[in-house]
Order: sequence, then structure tokens, then C-alpha cells
Amino acid sequence: MDHAGRLSRLRSALGVNDLGFLLITHLPNIRYLCGFTGSAAALLVADHDAVLFTDGRYRTQAREEVKVARIMIARKSPLLAAAEWLAAARSRSTTVGIEPESITAGMRDRLAGMFKGRARLRSAPPLVERARMVKDAAEILRIRRAVEVGASLFHIARKKIRPGVTEVEVAAAMEYEARCTGAEGMSFPTILASGARSAIVHGRASGARIPRRGFVVCDFGVILAGYCSDRTRTVHVGRPSGEVRRLYEAVLEAQQAAIAAVRPGATAAEVDGAARHVLRERKLGRYFTHSTGHGLGLEIHEAPRLAEGQTQKLEPGMVITIEPGAYVPGKWGVRIEDVVVVTPSGCEVLTPTDKELVII
Amino acid sequence: MDHAGRLSRLRSALGVNDLGFLLITHLPNIRYLCGFTGSAAALLVADHDAVLFTDGRYRTQAREEVKVARIMIARKSPLLAAAEWLAAARSRSTTVGIEPESITAGMRDRLAGMFKGRARLRSAPPLVERARMVKDAAEILRIRRAVEVGASLFHIARKKIRPGVTEVEVAAAMEYEARCTGAEGMSFPTILASGARSAIVHGRASGARIPRRGFVVCDFGVILAGYCSDRTRTVHVGRPSGEVRRLYEAVLEAQQAAIAAVRPGATAAEVDGAARHVLRERKLGRYFTHSTGHGLGLEIHEAPRLAEGQTQKLEPGMVITIEPGAYVPGKWGVRIEDVVVVTPSGCEVLTPTDKELVII
Repeated sequence: MDHAGRLSRLRSALGVNDLGFLLITHLPNIRYLCGFTGSAAALLVADHDAVLFTDGRYRTQAREEVKVARIMIARKSPLLAAAEWLAAARSRSTTVGIEPESITAGMRDRLAGMFKGRARLRSAPPLVERARMVKDAAEILRIRRAVEVGASLFHIARKKIRPGVTEVEVAAAMEYEARCTGAEGMSFPTILASGARSAIVHGRASGARIPRRGFVVCDFGVILAGYCSDRTRTVHVGRPSGEVRRLYEAVLEAQQAAIAAVRPGATAAEVDGAARHVLRERKLGRYFTHSTGHGLGLEIHEAPRLAEGQTQKLEPGMVITIEPGAYVPGKWGVRIEDVVVVTPSGCEVLTPTDKELVII
Repeated sequence: MDHAGRLSRLRSALGVNDLGFLLITHLPNIRYLCGFTGSAAALLVADHDAVLFTDGRYRTQAREEVKVARIMIARKSPLLAAAEWLAAARSRSTTVGIEPESITAGMRDRLAGMFKGRARLRSAPPLVERARMVKDAAEILRIRRAVEVGASLFHIARKKIRPGVTEVEVAAAMEYEARCTGAEGMSFPTILASGARSAIVHGRASGARIPRRGFVVCDFGVILAGYCSDRTRTVHVGRPSGEVRRLYEAVLEAQQAAIAAVRPGATAAEVDGAARHVLRERKLGRYFTHSTGHGLGLEIHEAPRLAEGQTQKLEPGMVITIEPGAYVPGKWGVRIEDVVVVTPSGCEVLTPTDKELVII
């Protein structure tokens, strides 16, 4: 990973934003900038310096992972250690940018107290999140692998889903396979929602038994070498009626329309609109109760957000999910989701593309 | 769970702290107070009212789970919806307490903007965390069950740990069993650290193969009905030398000394000191690089913290881990951990007690 290049681009942004230092506290941002994967850290970035603060548990690991920043081992909270270091080091006044969506209000109060008269704290714009929106080749490679491993779990689901089996047994088998294939973990709690539960958008696998007939929404992903995958397939247990087939086809058409709308220069809202338009035409618009997709990478949910009103323009290298759905509370739900990468001419679907309705 | 009683005790604390409202944003605190288990919520507590704000995904679930608060479904962030509701409802000035360690600095800025001239924001003391430190009978029952299920996973580890097997294969088998036994998930990423990796305090299960000879630290826990378990056992692969046995015995003695020190009125630091004293006497003090334990319940790490300088006194009903360890970087590590509940006369160890050195 090109940590040096990332840090150097961030440094140019410091000057533009009139910041002497940027104090990075969001762990995925720290990992993105310097490669550190531990669970406690603060990264201080300045014009000619970068210092990673972590604690004694990560002494060895930090040395192995981090080549672009000096490492300081803190005996207390790494963030407080960074602030103390800053307060001690700065004789003249400077402006320290903080990440307002990652630092707690309580912590900012403590930092402000420590900096009194020495440095000014200012909420920085989401500089690192903006950079992370566009993935480089090494990141796309990792996401590609994560998506491949993630997608392979669907075969397990197809084998395990049978009437009478609990949702959680299916999820457990998928998660076991993910672990054995080398995944660090799942990128979110596995969603396995069968029968009427398929209408629950975030229907985590429960102890409920899969009924004889109905949809089963399977939404799952892995973390592999730090990067997330995300895939949804909806299968049908038992013989589907004509209406069930039409519902499924409508969601699939909406998904394909959204994928067709992905290209550099299109706004996030336009892609969302393409899916929404299809479902509205089929009188299913009011059952599509969430947004069409989201960026993914080191985190399962990143910018951009593909939703109404989102003016962010797509750029080559952005990696996003396309996942429209329709849900009638108490009855049924369908969602179909792929991961795509924006290319100079449109997009490439990373998820294996078979999307015929699977009947079990 | 006695949500009504918990809310009522919290209300008495509002007056004492001169707060008109308390805006709860920490999800485990929300669950504790009203039973809601969704992933997006804000709970507003006032003298004669409690309102839970969540979003459309949780409409049905909130109605099922929450009996002690009114439910409002927000079209945006539940926290912003709560703030708008407050800003619109209050004609006269009031003080709104926030949880400074859970709300982000950016969010507090937005709330302050919305409340301008209408309400004053103030960082509240950790009222709910303090209440949560002492568990009631229903909570202790749930923790007891979680500890039982969690402890049973050690049998899987004993069966699976063999030279040449990867750490992650052992962890995967434990996690599969946890899922099938009904756990919602693991309470933290399973630690399975073998050979020289046993010296890494937070050595998550990796692709490393278990060597022919050496310690394997297994630190794992489940979430069952919302409550966490936590247990560490260290086994030895291959015939242990006399020194290895002495190291293990020293950590075990330290752990037993700390357990013996647990009783109402003892400070958290005294319990920590009891373990530390034993390891210092054995010249292992400098290898004991973390604190002796922590509270656990709805979260895997809660108050109190059993560390040097901690003046918090233990009370009956507190549930804590006792987990001293010793680690020589690049060589070996040993940790032994149980969950105990403070009783009127001392403590009860909830984890099955067998702690003989297991040789594989």
C-alpha cells in the first residue's frame, strides 16, 4: 500500500486548510495512512512529520506495520499522549485539526483544556474520507479478493437452507467457512431473514426456522486483509407463485438499471434514481425503504452514499454496492446486491453475476 | 428486566444533577434503560416522560421491545430527530444533559446550533454507567448463562489444538459452536495466540500454525441474550519444562490471590495489587503489563477497572474479570481469567474452576 503517497497528498491538504497539524483518531483512517491495524492509536500529521501513538500492547506490531511514521508508545490513552506531546512541543501557537465525527465531545474538552493558550483546535473537513473514496489499484485488488471469498459463501447458504433449519445454523456454517478461508471476520452481522422475516431490512440471523415456503434474504460479507465485501442474494424456498417471480424480477431489473447508470460523472442520486424509477413503475416504490448503495473498503459503509439528494459525482476507482430491495412488512422481502467498481467507461461488477431466482 | 425501576432511579438523579432532560446516546445504556436492541437510537429521559427515537428499520422491533418509553420513528438520524423534537417542544429554557463519551464532537456542535437560546447542553456525569456497575438478579442470571456457554467452548479448543493446526481453525470451530449454541456472536475477536505469539496480549487468532511445543493462550467470550462472557485459559503443547510449570503456577497463584481479595469494600486497586504482589515476588512483575480485570455485562469492558490507582470500592452485585498474566516478548505468555460476582461476604467464581495446566 502506498502509505507515503497518501500521507504526502494529505500534507498538501493541510496547508490549503490552514492547519499546522491534523490529529487522526478514526482507526480506518489511521490504517489507510500508515498501515497500523491495532485497536488503539492516534496519528499526528504535520508538514514534515508523522507520529503514531499507540500503547504497549502494540509495540512489536506497530514496528512491523508502520514505516512512514515515528512510533511513540503511550502509557495512557494514545490520544491523550498525542495531545500532551503536542502541548509540550509547541512553543508558538498553531492550529490542530481534529476529526469531529470520530473524537468524542468529552475528549475534545480534555484536549482543549490541555492546549489552552498553546494551540487552537479546529474541526477539520473529512480529508481522509474524501481520499479514501477513490481506491487505488492495490485496494481494488484486495476488495476483489474479499468479494470472491465473500461470494463463495453463498454456495454454503444454498446447501444449508432447507425448511426447518434455523437461520442461525445457516449463518454459522457460512461464518465457519469464511474463517477457514482466511477471513479476519465478517464485515457485519450476517443477515439471514426467512419467510415474513425477509421484510426486516436488517434481519440478523435468528433462531427462527426456515419455513416451507417463502423468500430468504442472505446478506453477508467478509473482511479479508482489511477490506470488506458485501453481497445479497434472495432465494425462494418452495415453488414460487407467478407474483413472487414478478416481485423478484422487478427488484432485479431495478438493480440492473442502477448498475447501468454507474459511470464517471453520474451523481450518486442518479444511480439511486435509476433503481427507484423501475420500482415505482412497478408500483413497488413505497416498499423500497432504504438507499440504493454505499461505498465500501476498509469499512463496510463509506462515502459515497447512493441516495436521493446526494450530489457526489462518481469517479473511476470508487467501489460501491448496488442493492435495491422491496419489503412488505409481515409478508416478504427481496434484496439483490453486488459490489461494483467505477471504471473510466462505466463500471465492472466484481460480484459473480448469476442472479437468476434460486429455488430450493 | 426491571426497566421501569432503572428509569425511575435515573430520574431521581436528574433532579440532583440539575438536569431537565438527559439525552442517552450510548446504545448499551439505551438497552439497559428500556430494552431496545437496535443499532440506531437516542433516548430522551425527563421527569415524567421517556421517548425513544429510532428509524424506520426498527419500527416493529421497537414496539415489541420497549414498554417504558414512547417511540418516535425518525426519517433521519434518531439523535437529530430527538434534538429537533426538544428544540420544538421547549418554550422555556432548560438544561439537557448529554453523554460526552458517546456523542461525537461534531454532533454536539450540531445540537448546540439547534438549541441556541432554547436549551443549554451540559456534559452529564456517567449516571447510567454507574448504575450498570451493580447488576441485579436478572442480569446476573444472564451473565451466568453466558459464562456457561462461553466456558463450554474451551472443550472445543482442547480438542482442536494440535501442532500444525492454524490458530484460526481452532477459533473458527469455537465460534461455530457458539453460534449453534445460541450465542448472538462473540463478545470480542477470539484470541488464540500460540508459541511466541502467546506473548502478544491481544493476539487475535491468525493463520499461524500451532508449534510442537509452547503455550497457547485462549481468550474468548460469547454474547448471549445481550450479556457478555469472558474467559482465558492457557494450555501447553508438548511436555512442559520445570520452568514452564513454575511460570504457569505463578500466574495461577496471582489469579487466586486476586480472587481472594475480592469482597465488598475492597478497592479495585487492592484486588489488582494482590495479583501484582504475587508476580513481583516471583520476579515476574515487569512482565505483567496490563490491569487485573474489568467489569462486564452488556459490554465486554465496563466499570470498574481493576488497576493501580483505582479507588472504586467493590459492591455486592458487581461482576468483574480476574485475569492477571505474564508475557516475555518473543518468547511466551500466560494468562488465566475467570468471571466473578461480588457477594455480601466475598465473591463467587462463575467460570468453571478447573485451572490445572492442560498439556496437549
